[in-house]
Parts: sequence; C-alpha cells; structure tokens
Amino acid sequence: MTFFLEVIGTIAFAFAGALVAIDNDLDLFGIECMAVMTACGGGMTRDIILGNTPPMMFRNPVYVTMAVVTGFLTVTIYNKFIQSRYKDRILDMISILDAIGLAIFTIVGMDLAMQLGYTGAFLICAMGVLTAVGGGLLRDVMVNVKPVILTKEVYATASMIGSVFYYFTLQTAIPAVVTTIIALVIIFGLRMWTIIKHINLPVVEKKQQI
Amino acid sequence: MTFFLEVIGTIAFAFAGALVAIDNDLDLFGIECMAVMTACGGGMTRDIILGNTPPMMFRNPVYVTMAVVTGFLTVTIYNKFIQSRYKDRILDMISILDAIGLAIFTIVGMDLAMQLGYTGAFLICAMGVLTAVGGGLLRDVMVNVKPVILTKEVYATASMIGSVFYYFTLQTAIPAVVTTIIALVIIFGLRMWTIIKHINLPVVEKKQQI
Amino acid sequence: MTFFLEVIGTIAFAFAGALVAIDNDLDLFGIECMAVMTACGGGMTRDIILGNTPPMMFRNPVYVTMAVVTGFLTVTIYNKFIQSRYKDRILDMISILDAIGLAIFTIVGMDLAMQLGYTGAFLICAMGVLTAVGGGLLRDVMVNVKPVILTKEVYATASMIGSVFYYFTLQTAIPAVVTTIIALVIIFGLRMWTIIKHINLPVVEKKQQI
Repeated sequence: MTFFLEVIGTIAFAFAGALVAIDNDLDLFGIECMAVMTACGGGMTRDIILGNTPPMMFRNPVYVTMAVVTGFLTVTIYNKFIQSRYKDRILDMISILDAIGLAIFTIVGMDLAMQLGYTGAFLICAMGVLTAVGGGLLRDVMVNVKPVILTKEVYATASMIGSVFYYFTLQTAIPAVVTTIIALVIIFGLRMWTIIKHINLPVVEKKQQI
Repeated sequence: MTFFLEVIGTIAFAFAGALVAIDNDLDLFGIECMAVMTACGGGMTRDIILGNTPPMMFRNPVYVTMAVVTGFLTVTIYNKFIQSRYKDRILDMISILDAIGLAIFTIVGMDLAMQLGYTGAFLICAMGVLTAVGGGLLRDVMVNVKPVILTKEVYATASMIGSVFYYFTLQTAIPAVVTTIIALVIIFGLRMWTIIKHINLPVVEKKQQI
Repeated sequence: MTFFLEVIGTIAFAFAGALVAIDNDLDLFGIECMAVMTACGGGMTRDIILGNTPPMMFRNPVYVTMAVVTGFLTVTIYNKFIQSRYKDRILDMISILDAIGLAIFTIVGMDLAMQLGYTGAFLICAMGVLTAVGGGLLRDVMVNVKPVILTKEVYATASMIGSVFYYFTLQTAIPAVVTTIIALVIIFGLRMWTIIKHINLPVVEKKQQI
C-alpha cells in the first residue's frame, strides 16, 4: 500500500519536474535529470543529512527508473498534452497526484528517520518535510527559478502541520495505522483545500519607502 | 561567552536572511526558511562535509528556534523599519552584528573540526570559512541572487585570513584564549575596516574585445 | 599516468570555472571559488553521497591548489587572452582538455566507488557521471546561469555512455587497462565528435498553444 502511494507520488513529482524542464528549454538529459531530481531529490537530501549513505535512490534504483520512464513519457506526450482540450483537467489531476505525493513522502520520510533510531521531534518532522519538498526545491534552484515552495501557496506548510500532528499522535495510544491515515488526510486535505480556495501564505506588504 | 556571541551571530544572520527573503517577495514560509538557512546553513554544510550527521542544527534546535523567532520579528517590524528615520543607523548596527557573526562562526567552525579530531590545516580553515559564509551563499543561491560573497566586498576573505592566523597561532605557546580573541578581532576588524573604507576585492577589468 | 590525466582535467575545469566567473563579474575570491568548485565540486558531491567524508579535496589539497593557481593565471592572462588572435585556437584547446577531464573524471569516480566496496551498476555509473559533471553543475547553479549540461550539447550523455560501457566490460575477461583506455576513448571521442558535428540532444519542440 505504501509502495503503491509512493509510486503515485514519484510519478506525479517526476511529471512536474519534466514539465518545468521543458518550460525552461532543457534538453533530453536535462529533462530526465529534473524528473529524477524532483522525484528523488528530497529523499536524497534527507539521507545525506542523516548520514544514511549512499542515499536510497542509488541503492535501489526502482524510483529513479520510474522517474526516467515518466520523463520519457512526458516528452512524448507534451505537445499532445499542451494542445489537448483536456489540458486543464489533466493539470488538475496532476495537482491531486502531487498532493498525494506531498502527503505520502512526508510520512515516509518521518518513518525512515524513526527507523534509523532518531527520536528528536524537530529532526524527525524536518526530515518528513524535507523528503516531501526538497526535490521541488532542488529542481527550482537547478533551473534558476525562484522556488515555488518559498513564494506561494500552502505547500511545505501543509507538510509541516501534518508532520507535527503525526509525530505527537504517534506517542499516544492511537494505533499507528489510524495516525498515519489521519496525517495523510490532513496534509492532502490542507493542500487541496488551499488550492481550491486560492489561499496563500501571507507576504509582507511593502509600503512605499519614504 | 561563546554562546552569547553565537546568539548575536545567529540573530544577525537570520535578520539578514529574512530581509533578503522579503526583498525577493517570498511568503512567510520562505522568509522563515531563509532566516534559518542563512543562520544555520553554514554549520549544516560543514557538518555534512565532515560526516558529522545529523548536523547540529537538527540535533539541538536552539539556533533554529532563534532564527525562526528573528524571522517573525523581522516580518513584524519590516514596514516600521523601512520607513524609520533610524533605518540607516539600524542597518549599520546589523552590519556590525553580521561582522561579529562572521568572526565567531569562523572560530566556532574551526574549533568543532578540531574537536572531531581533524588536523589538516586546509580542512580546518576551510571548515571555519564555510561555517561563516556558507549560510549566506545558500541563501543567495536559493533565491537566485548572484551570491554577495562571490561578487564584492571583503567578506569570506576576512574570514579566511583570520582562520589561517588562528590555525597557525594555535600551534605556538600563546594561550588559546588570547589567540581566539586576536583572531576574532582580526576578522571583525578587517570586515569593518573594508566596509568603512569601501575596499573591495579586485575584479578583472574587461578590455573591449577586438 | 592517471595522476597526469587528472591534472589536465583539473586545470581545464578550473580554467573553465574561472572564465565563467569573470564573465559574471565575480571578484577575485569568487573567481577562485568557482575555479575550485568546477574542478573539485564533482568529486566532493560524490564523496558526500558515498559518505566518504571529509571529501578527498579537503584531505589532500593538491587539486584545490592546482585549481587556485589556475584561477590566478586565468585572471592574469584574461585580457591578453580575450584580445589575442589565437583566442579561438586557445578555446578549442580548452575544449579538448575539458573533454579529457570529462573522460578521466568519469573513470576515476567509478574506480573510487568500486574501491569503497560498492557494487550496484546504477550507483557506480552515477558516481562516475557525477564526478565528471557535478562541478560544472555546481558552478552554474552558484552564479545562476542555467546549467550548460542540462540545456545543450552531448556532455553528461557522453560520460554516461562511457560509464555503462566501462562497468559492463569490467565484468568480462578483458584486461582492466584495455577497458579503461577504450572507455576513455569512447567518452572523449563522443564529446569531441558531437562538438565538431554540432550534434545536440533533442529538445521538445513546443507547438503553439491553442
């Protein structure tokens, strides 16, 4: 089940990465690189920070392979996709898959940190958020786009709220499976709700300088 | 005492990070992220390079907490600050605090590398400089600004000169505490002196291409 | 022999890094930083990913020293170089040296991963490619240039093809030295051939959006 959700997340992230790459006129290698980095970069960064080397993505290349295949598919269907009358509907679907990825990678990242024996609340929650949003951050930094997760929308914040909930509820008597499902629903729900309602995080309104 | 200076450095760095974030229209999460990265990113990079994982900032979140609080404060006071008649005086004060941070983080980074048992002069000096300037570098790369430390002013260079002095003087009979104070004064002094005198590192004057 | 080729690669990479730095108006520290990062950043990233810390470049600063000297030389000769009637010939020579660096660093990176006891084909090939192209990637990200290796020319791809060949041929009865030479020739040859023939990787032709 986790594996199935991870596959969905990987494909959604890889697709998003490939789209950004194509928008930025990268070549085929660049597109594949961005698909892989978006899908696996968060986990890679987490593993490096935890000293869990070499990172998973290099030891078990199944996710990298999925990302590469997704990259090729994106290249193949891009023009059909962009001209399709279903374009907006497909993009909506991608948003949903991406929100699923956000939720599942947060929980997977936290579980992995706990499996490695770490206990600090901050470390574990940070590893969850990093696993979920690190790939998108790396992707944007690599093509010199101002990172989406730093500028708008409730993205990392949804992951963060869910991670704090998950961490503290795990300490209670509530069965882990229930906790996991609620945490996933919180992250996914917050993300989708703020997309639908166009809710963004506050920015500082700059008054005219005098 | 060291802790007190580290607090000053952390707050000054976090404030600088939050200001850059606001200038680049990041949202609240982005501002906090940049405050934390600027304040703790240098030490994080150093710990990753030394294999000292997970990095300190994740094990003892006191500095992260200070950076987050500084980020919130910066958001709160930004408009008052930017319109204040004391603006320039406050910015001068921030420059001084930042120079203190530069000096203290250089020494802290080197001490940590030596505590971990490393002895190579290059490694230890590099870790000092990286601790001091790595956060600012990460910050600028993340918002796609050309990194300040690579383009102007004597910043990393002051840290580097102080680190070499500190490393070699530590090998002599001079008491460590004296060495530390002199090294701090050298870095702080070089930084402030080059700010006041508007001294920059040389750039290559490009002649017209023929 | 390997050392001699590594020296050539280091100098060529450092020179390329220093040129990009000067083009982007960095100061002397920035130029040196970029020379070192381009020459040693790939190996550094590889070592961090493999948990081989602190990375080689910090333990044995001979390559860093070479990169720094190359950086100073580049600064010294830049204006003479840019106005020279031999400019294009020199740039051609740099391309050749860079292609030698690409080939040698791919093999060196793979050998190092294998010496550390790793066996996975994907990991080993990835470490070869990363050693070869990681420095250039870091360089471009640091000055906010869209990374050359993601946008055009057969660069990482040549490294990748050579690495796969090397990995699988090593498993056969063919002597390692023969395998090494053929792999080097493949990477170098592919790179030079695609430069001369102006062969690029495909990009996605974007049709007008309707």
